[in-house]
Amino acid sequence: MQRFASVTRVRPEKLEQYKALHAKPWAGVLETLKKAGIQNYSIYLHDDLLFSCLEYHGSDWQAATQMIAADPVTRDWWKLTDPCQNPFPSAKSGELWSSMEPIFLME
Amino acid sequence: MQRFASVTRVRPEKLEQYKALHAKPWAGVLETLKKAGIQNYSIYLHDDLLFSCLEYHGSDWQAATQMIAADPVTRDWWKLTDPCQNPFPSAKSGELWSSMEPIFLME
Repeated sequence: MQRFASVTRVRPEKLEQYKALHAKPWAGVLETLKKAGIQNYSIYLHDDLLFSCLEYHGSDWQAATQMIAADPVTRDWWKLTDPCQNPFPSAKSGELWSSMEPIFLME
Repeated sequence: MQRFASVTRVRPEKLEQYKALHAKPWAGVLETLKKAGIQNYSIYLHDDLLFSCLEYHGSDWQAATQMIAADPVTRDWWKLTDPCQNPFPSAKSGELWSSMEPIFLME
């Protein structure tokens, strides 16, 4: 199992929309995440910061992310969620969420 | 089981010290966390942001945090780690880490 965490910012004027979407996530989005091997996926908010952490139970993370990105329901979901996000200046080109470096773990 | 996440900032000049401490955490600190019912405790870094997330397996979170705060080894550890942190202006008085609001969970 691998753990991944990432961070981005929410646009203040889109905060309520982002929260409402995530309070009732689409079944097809969750199904795809589960099929991809993702478990214990949380998103947390403070000020305009969004922090996500998840567990990947599988052997090919890149293939898993590609499978998720190819899912039509997920792509429709992202059409709503992407405009809510305001990536960090330090985000890689084309990335809304910035990967975080793990610096401590106690299982 | 309850999940908690929090966020703070690291002082750039203290980043290497903070990372070095957490790469080799003291046995007594980990022991106290485990006794308190904490599992799967991670800290992640991006830019100057520190995110922590953990699971609490117990029935009295307030008592657990008080037990941790009363541990002499943990207090010595905090003498080193506290000065590394630069709380958000929005942090509650006396708190280095700001609690985050959970807005999404897929188990």
